[in-house]
Amino acid sequence: MGPIVLLTDFGEKDWFAGVLRGVISGIAPKVSILDLGHHIPPGDIRAGAFSLWAARDHFPKGSIFVAVVDPGVGGPREALLVSAHGRHFIGPDNGLLSWAASGDPRRRIRALANPRYRAASLSSTFHGRDLFAPAAAHLARGAKPAAFGPLLKAMAELPPWRADFSGGKAGGKPGGTVRGEILHVDAFGNAITSLSAADLGKLPAPPKAARARGKAFPWKPYYGAAGAGKPLSLLGSCGLVELAVNGGNAAERHGLKRGDEVNLK
Amino acid sequence: MGPIVLLTDFGEKDWFAGVLRGVISGIAPKVSILDLGHHIPPGDIRAGAFSLWAARDHFPKGSIFVAVVDPGVGGPREALLVSAHGRHFIGPDNGLLSWAASGDPRRRIRALANPRYRAASLSSTFHGRDLFAPAAAHLARGAKPAAFGPLLKAMAELPPWRADFSGGKAGGKPGGTVRGEILHVDAFGNAITSLSAADLGKLPAPPKAARARGKAFPWKPYYGAAGAGKPLSLLGSCGLVELAVNGGNAAERHGLKRGDEVNLK
Amino acid sequence: MGPIVLLTDFGEKDWFAGVLRGVISGIAPKVSILDLGHHIPPGDIRAGAFSLWAARDHFPKGSIFVAVVDPGVGGPREALLVSAHGRHFIGPDNGLLSWAASGDPRRRIRALANPRYRAASLSSTFHGRDLFAPAAAHLARGAKPAAFGPLLKAMAELPPWRADFSGGKAGGKPGGTVRGEILHVDAFGNAITSLSAADLGKLPAPPKAARARGKAFPWKPYYGAAGAGKPLSLLGSCGLVELAVNGGNAAERHGLKRGDEVNLK
Repeated sequence: MGPIVLLTDFGEKDWFAGVLRGVISGIAPKVSILDLGHHIPPGDIRAGAFSLWAARDHFPKGSIFVAVVDPGVGGPREALLVSAHGRHFIGPDNGLLSWAASGDPRRRIRALANPRYRAASLSSTFHGRDLFAPAAAHLARGAKPAAFGPLLKAMAELPPWRADFSGGKAGGKPGGTVRGEILHVDAFGNAITSLSAADLGKLPAPPKAARARGKAFPWKPYYGAAGAGKPLSLLGSCGLVELAVNGGNAAERHGLKRGDEVNLK
Repeated sequence: MGPIVLLTDFGEKDWFAGVLRGVISGIAPKVSILDLGHHIPPGDIRAGAFSLWAARDHFPKGSIFVAVVDPGVGGPREALLVSAHGRHFIGPDNGLLSWAASGDPRRRIRALANPRYRAASLSSTFHGRDLFAPAAAHLARGAKPAAFGPLLKAMAELPPWRADFSGGKAGGKPGGTVRGEILHVDAFGNAITSLSAADLGKLPAPPKAARARGKAFPWKPYYGAAGAGKPLSLLGSCGLVELAVNGGNAAERHGLKRGDEVNLK
Repeated sequence: MGPIVLLTDFGEKDWFAGVLRGVISGIAPKVSILDLGHHIPPGDIRAGAFSLWAARDHFPKGSIFVAVVDPGVGGPREALLVSAHGRHFIGPDNGLLSWAASGDPRRRIRALANPRYRAASLSSTFHGRDLFAPAAAHLARGAKPAAFGPLLKAMAELPPWRADFSGGKAGGKPGGTVRGEILHVDAFGNAITSLSAADLGKLPAPPKAARARGKAFPWKPYYGAAGAGKPLSLLGSCGLVELAVNGGNAAERHGLKRGDEVNLK
């Protein structure tokens, strides 16, 4: 089983991500350890949840995700092993795992309760090291999910993304608008929205442009189909509409931020 | 044997950390290569030494650490293979390895003198690539430590951390204060001090608060036990007292810096 | 075969580098995945090409480089598998692969045309995930280069580096100057130039100093041979002349930038 996939808000300045690798290597020396990333902004559960969702299907079945964005560490929040979509997700019960684990009717949520699968003594500040990484390593070595702890009926869930369609007529022909929100601004400055190919399908015709912060982003098939430095929208690699600038940073240029409303027609 | 664990001040902007991996992979293709981190501030030997110390026990016995913070590269400083605490430490003789390798009476210090275990020609600026990484890879493949070079009697040592106890009476009852220093500020803004659980044990009662830069940090069992945005102190994951702000950045908020005096009573 | 070596301009903020690892792991679970780096400045093809060139020979024969700096993604630019110097280079046809793949008369350039070795459907924005990473993984698993697509006669090539010698007399003795350019400024602030040991060999005597932006950098055997904080030049670890400051940041101190002229005599 495996690989083990790491996603945290630890950054790379300290030894924190490194010791996750060390702990896993001590328990399961042969397992592949793959970084999904360690640069979730500190404590930003929503950003972590979105990364986990966006990445999930590109890791093989059997992958074990260790996700740690855990401002409530040491307090009463539960620790989870969630099995869904043929993969496992280990982390705190604060919503971080919820988007990646949603939509599978066979989802199983378990508490990480078995002291065999954690460090001998648990720090109150670093459960990534003492609880989540050891659990992942034992799972990769063959421990059964049921051995980790009891089934739970529910887990903390982040709210679903906004995406609405409103019909209408434009010049006597069927029209309509889909409305959503910006979910993520990536390192290139592209703004990824909550609007999917399925939402586009509700429009009576291919979209003409997306609009956000009063700015139009004409619909294009790829970045370079807009002029250099020109705004555009397209269906991005997550299967979601993105707002971009060809060869530029759309978020900086147009002040786009997570949570901004976007419409498309 | 292995894994090989990399700690450097190279950053990730250039190909420097990458070629360590390449060189190791060319000599020992099956060994696991784990990053401890590459973001030690350039030339900051103390920061590297602390990371190595903090991480050591979370990597398995047999781990081979390659540590490169090496402003004296190409000059007369010695190159070392130090075996201690069941692990190996390879790097320059400038104090970088000293904290991680201290406290083991069976410590062995060797010079990396054998030309078989280095690149055919040594650059004067990149011994990580030409000397330290090849040595680690050959060690992982089975070369004996004694084959690398002669035993040395001593190595460069950083000064030990400050941590003192002074007794006293408070209101007629036994009192006392432990005094130490801030050793590290982490990416979350937590300040890790030199005061350990053993130092706390010298106090006649559990501590009430830590104090640094004139600010009190009340003693708490975990971050969330302080109010949101409130300062606190606790025993952190290194086994050392930490100063923190619940949900905030203590170092930014209160101007905490490495070397600052801390007391606890 | 392998390892697979990743070089991109994705940064580490998002899941983009992570999913390359996931895709490879799904196709070729046993192959080593090594990061060369993900911090090429966005869209900076020249910087990526230089990193690839600088790193190439330190990865073993059989290495498969996946290089993605791809502002033209989704448009008409070709996708390549280039075999040269006993290694493979996979990426867009925009010059990125050209320096690393130059100088081998047995170089083979192929288009990545075979749909078997890519994702079932290709996004228009993320060919790293859908095309380049799958191709590398299939190659590592044993697919033959010829199976990926037809041979091409040419690929996009970046211009070669400037490096000229002009002879002369100095005080009646043979003199001369070599002239080149700064190719890269590294994270330590060292400026790597286009002048090689072979260029130095054209001088009638060992060089006295390099000069850039009106500042002299006296020739030294290693950093520490200059006084603390003093400028120097030396033969760096790429086999190219570097401008540096002992214990300091030469680029910040002296305003050195990529493209600046450098001479040495």
